[in-house]
Amino acid sequence: MSALAEALFRPRRIARVGASADPAKLTARAQIHLHRHGFGGALFPVNPNAAEVLGEPAYPSLAAIPGPVDHAFILTGADRAIEAVEACAAKGVAVATVLADGFAEAGPAGAERQARLLAAARAGGVRLVGPNAIGLVNVAARIALSVNAVLAMEPPLPAGRTAVISHSGSLIGAILSRGAARGLGYSLLAATGNEADLGVADLLALLAEEDGTDVVLLFLETIRDPCALRAAAAKAHAAGKAVLAYRLGRSAAGAAMAVSHTGAVAGSDAAVDALLAASGIARLDTFEALIEAAPLFARARPVPAPHRAVSVLTTTGGGAALVVDRLGLAGIAAPSIRDMTLAGTDPERIADGLAAMDGDGKTDAVLAVIGSSAQFRPESSVAGVVAAAPAMRKPLAAFLAPEAPETTRLLARAGIACFRTPEAAADALRARLAWREPAAPADAQDVTEAREALAKARGPTLDEAEARSVLACLGVPVAPAHLVTDLAGLSGIPWALDYPVALKAVSAALPHKTEAGGVVLNLADRGALRAAAREMVGRLRDVPLAGLLVAPMQPGVGEALLGFRRDPQAGPVVVLGAGGVLAELMPPPVLRPAPLGAEAAAEMVAAAPLGHLRGFRGRPAGDLAALARAAAAFSRLAALAEVAEAEINPLLVKGEGEGVLALDALIVRRPR
Amino acid sequence: MSALAEALFRPRRIARVGASADPAKLTARAQIHLHRHGFGGALFPVNPNAAEVLGEPAYPSLAAIPGPVDHAFILTGADRAIEAVEACAAKGVAVATVLADGFAEAGPAGAERQARLLAAARAGGVRLVGPNAIGLVNVAARIALSVNAVLAMEPPLPAGRTAVISHSGSLIGAILSRGAARGLGYSLLAATGNEADLGVADLLALLAEEDGTDVVLLFLETIRDPCALRAAAAKAHAAGKAVLAYRLGRSAAGAAMAVSHTGAVAGSDAAVDALLAASGIARLDTFEALIEAAPLFARARPVPAPHRAVSVLTTTGGGAALVVDRLGLAGIAAPSIRDMTLAGTDPERIADGLAAMDGDGKTDAVLAVIGSSAQFRPESSVAGVVAAAPAMRKPLAAFLAPEAPETTRLLARAGIACFRTPEAAADALRARLAWREPAAPADAQDVTEAREALAKARGPTLDEAEARSVLACLGVPVAPAHLVTDLAGLSGIPWALDYPVALKAVSAALPHKTEAGGVVLNLADRGALRAAAREMVGRLRDVPLAGLLVAPMQPGVGEALLGFRRDPQAGPVVVLGAGGVLAELMPPPVLRPAPLGAEAAAEMVAAAPLGHLRGFRGRPAGDLAALARAAAAFSRLAALAEVAEAEINPLLVKGEGEGVLALDALIVRRPR
Repeated sequence: MSALAEALFRPRRIARVGASADPAKLTARAQIHLHRHGFGGALFPVNPNAAEVLGEPAYPSLAAIPGPVDHAFILTGADRAIEAVEACAAKGVAVATVLADGFAEAGPAGAERQARLLAAARAGGVRLVGPNAIGLVNVAARIALSVNAVLAMEPPLPAGRTAVISHSGSLIGAILSRGAARGLGYSLLAATGNEADLGVADLLALLAEEDGTDVVLLFLETIRDPCALRAAAAKAHAAGKAVLAYRLGRSAAGAAMAVSHTGAVAGSDAAVDALLAASGIARLDTFEALIEAAPLFARARPVPAPHRAVSVLTTTGGGAALVVDRLGLAGIAAPSIRDMTLAGTDPERIADGLAAMDGDGKTDAVLAVIGSSAQFRPESSVAGVVAAAPAMRKPLAAFLAPEAPETTRLLARAGIACFRTPEAAADALRARLAWREPAAPADAQDVTEAREALAKARGPTLDEAEARSVLACLGVPVAPAHLVTDLAGLSGIPWALDYPVALKAVSAALPHKTEAGGVVLNLADRGALRAAAREMVGRLRDVPLAGLLVAPMQPGVGEALLGFRRDPQAGPVVVLGAGGVLAELMPPPVLRPAPLGAEAAAEMVAAAPLGHLRGFRGRPAGDLAALARAAAAFSRLAALAEVAEAEINPLLVKGEGEGVLALDALIVRRPR
Repeated sequence: MSALAEALFRPRRIARVGASADPAKLTARAQIHLHRHGFGGALFPVNPNAAEVLGEPAYPSLAAIPGPVDHAFILTGADRAIEAVEACAAKGVAVATVLADGFAEAGPAGAERQARLLAAARAGGVRLVGPNAIGLVNVAARIALSVNAVLAMEPPLPAGRTAVISHSGSLIGAILSRGAARGLGYSLLAATGNEADLGVADLLALLAEEDGTDVVLLFLETIRDPCALRAAAAKAHAAGKAVLAYRLGRSAAGAAMAVSHTGAVAGSDAAVDALLAASGIARLDTFEALIEAAPLFARARPVPAPHRAVSVLTTTGGGAALVVDRLGLAGIAAPSIRDMTLAGTDPERIADGLAAMDGDGKTDAVLAVIGSSAQFRPESSVAGVVAAAPAMRKPLAAFLAPEAPETTRLLARAGIACFRTPEAAADALRARLAWREPAAPADAQDVTEAREALAKARGPTLDEAEARSVLACLGVPVAPAHLVTDLAGLSGIPWALDYPVALKAVSAALPHKTEAGGVVLNLADRGALRAAAREMVGRLRDVPLAGLLVAPMQPGVGEALLGFRRDPQAGPVVVLGAGGVLAELMPPPVLRPAPLGAEAAAEMVAAAPLGHLRGFRGRPAGDLAALARAAAAFSRLAALAEVAEAEINPLLVKGEGEGVLALDALIVRRPR
């Protein structure tokens, strides 16, 4: 890994393949940028048609370069990138960054080209960044190996201990320029583009081993490997680095755009949200909060059991109200607000006030709001805040009510998170308090029995009897039912049954049994049951029936829905919400990554929209502890790679201490 | 009105009462600011202890000033403000602005002091701004009549055609400094403070008659007179001026802060939202959008029937995705995105692209997104946008991905709305498309009959029979029911009844009948009814019963809830949501100002969370047209000043064409 990190982050001998000799061309930029920002290593332009490129001797081929090459920046068109990677392999180049687009983001032909590019890299032992990647900037090492237009800025680039990993190259420019204007600096900025080989998770895992970085900002257009991202985030967390993320594609329109931009796949935002939270990655909702929040997370740990309350010291009542109101919308209180408007910005009084707030056992963080003094007297307006900051143990954030860029930079220099908008300030504080340690993975469970039950089932969709059997093997309580397969004689109906009973048709071809007349409830006795069964067999004579299920009617408090699916971005997820008829009317269900540990299952039940099971309007409450156990058992479906999706609806929740019962079950296999 | 506007907005002879001679004091600032920013009129410092103030001759009293005074800025403490107002009255000063705090925002004693201040002003014919008001700045007329610290900025103040009216003085500083940095200018900025006399609505109505202003920004901490605000907004709209609002107090924490800041009263944010929408006021959700959106609304009209779609032209895919994703979250599509990354910022191609988007019949607005060129080549990066803008008929907005303040100012100079954050850009476009003409007021309706029915009722809470009678008089369809008052002999039960029936206790002392055992449903025949009635009378022997209601059970599709209340800020509102048991489980109901016109009622039904009445899962749909008519009839309660709140729950909604029926009713009078 370390050799890879060297070649990737700190190459000393760089080849530029397809280097244009025309300084106006995009592909000339990398050479200009490297020199402009002080690259001290060796640079080898490769251009078969020129003896020199921008005043430096050019080489006709990679092979012609004397001595080894650490990193090749491939600037050719998409059509010639594959042969360039092959040349890298021949030369023994460890890492190649491929600029060209026209790969997976450009439809099936591009995807096929990307597969060939990756195959060439794999065959030759070359690790790839990109394609469709604008390059990487190591600020501390002065390696501006990128064609990013933002590198036209005056050197030196702003240095700091925040790294940026982004699918989008242009957004790196937006982050760097906005950060620089605020006095915020960076250690390393890397665009991953289409991630044919090395992706965001790989770079994050490598950065976890690097000194020089405290906070990693992820600008995500997709998540291609949720498992790897979770592992890399855990590694970064263990190394004391905080990971912050902003994700595009929360809306359908945004998702569609991400697909065309870096060939992303669409996933559910709720599933991604659950994955990031479980990974210990703090998610920001506003773009500038991603940039401005970094100091709030540097060398910090999550607040273990937050009160969800912030102390506020302000020199402007209106300015503080802007943030407090927005915090309130995020469910965060501001129980103690100290308005220093009259006391002014006397540094000692402000520092004393902040120290007192730091000692308040009932709040989690401190917010300083500065009014007009920030505009006209930068130094003195924040002298108290700057003096108090080093001794503070709570997270400290500042919001400036007026336009006050100089004061913003003063605070940045002191390592204090400073926000320009009330929205970013509240968003960052919300994310800081919502930030959790990475969730412990669920204990490994033996799913052999369930796998065997699954193997016995036929067809892409299991019938209800087969699905019940798989779920029972996982430990989900399933309502007792009798399978009657003698459809002509109905000979299998047991003599002793707890009436009333429900009768259901069993067929993989009937996913919506109720609508098709495949369910009859509340049959009072054997006579009614036999009559209903005969009618049902007649009604469904055109449907391939595996049998009829006879199940005693079950009393309970209410119904829940448990779902399982594999999200294209977030991986396996469990879904929990209201069941039965209410499912469509109540608020949307909650999602969590599967499998669930016991603690995560209990948290999920607490967060789910299950008002009807919590004893509303004096009705009895349901057995939510049993529901959590069932959710954890159900979530073990994640280990059965064959299962694409599954649903229990309804899952009957009985009274406290009485358990839960799956009344119906659906399992769908992945297409082969 | 015009004389008031002159004295308020363009005073030529100003007295400063309680003017400090110490330039470091807050109260010295107004004199400094007036001169600094070029006041050309006469200024009279009033100070009994000094012969001159800041180099100008001082007067011992208002009375001692030779000639008339248009406007007095009262800078004394709260304790001496009343006598200063009395002196204004004696001198015939038209308008006084009172700076001191310590009035209604400071508890009961302060409120009492404010009442005396107002009484003094009323008695003497003086119009008041404040108390707790920082003053007013007329930029065009160079009258900086304010102690606002922002006026320490270098003259000239940025002039423009946007006015700001704010409860908070310090937020005016934040708006002015942020606007100035963006190249945005203002016509007039006024803080209203506690609004003892003149309030936001009054200033808005006066501004509606003024030339020089196209857009009015309201920064609201409360709404003290919803009726006046609606009327002033309609007046501004008729004069071709757009009104934009940002409101504090959306959260409980923010509302509490507003109370302590300018003595605001807490109201429901949903009710305020409904009031602003019906007033034709565009509400912004993010603070900077309030500032940056002004050019998007200047000299513009609402989009009559928006497609909720925006065309996007961009030189950075990632930058455009930031806004498109955020627009998507607001339900606005971006069906046509033109990425010019390769074409670059060639002005002609950009102008052509924007013109084509302007002609697209399927989108409502055009968004230009500019990448790194905005940072390094301000002029050329937006030359195409600036060239295209004058001919465009659709709203045009720009978002700059990098930090690019110079480009922001270039766009402002060209009158093009430019946004620094994707959140503000999307928020402003959302508000622009959500902006509607002020709603037509509901036709005046005769409520005499209902008022008479109300007068016959006894007690602060009407019993169900009384409430049914009031609602029936308003035109709400009420389910037929028979009132039985002979509780001993039950002689009033009609012989002919449509069984099954429901039996309900009638008592103003039983607002929760069901829980108290005052409701029995589904009584099959006369025998069962009499038995249930006897039991109920026995069960409720300790409750003062006005009788029993017998009502045939009614079949229907589902239940709705109609509510009415008077919001402390938004005034009378109607509430519509799911009824019965679902009321607590389904999404929150919607609110609209009452009374409702027919069109507003239909829109309200369309917006309400009534999924269970829209034919879900193959069930029949309810009679939503009849529901809208019932909501409009119910909303006429607004005209009965005695009614504090009312509720119909459930309102039974029958099948299409079959109408609705109020099954229960509650009316509560206002405390005398």
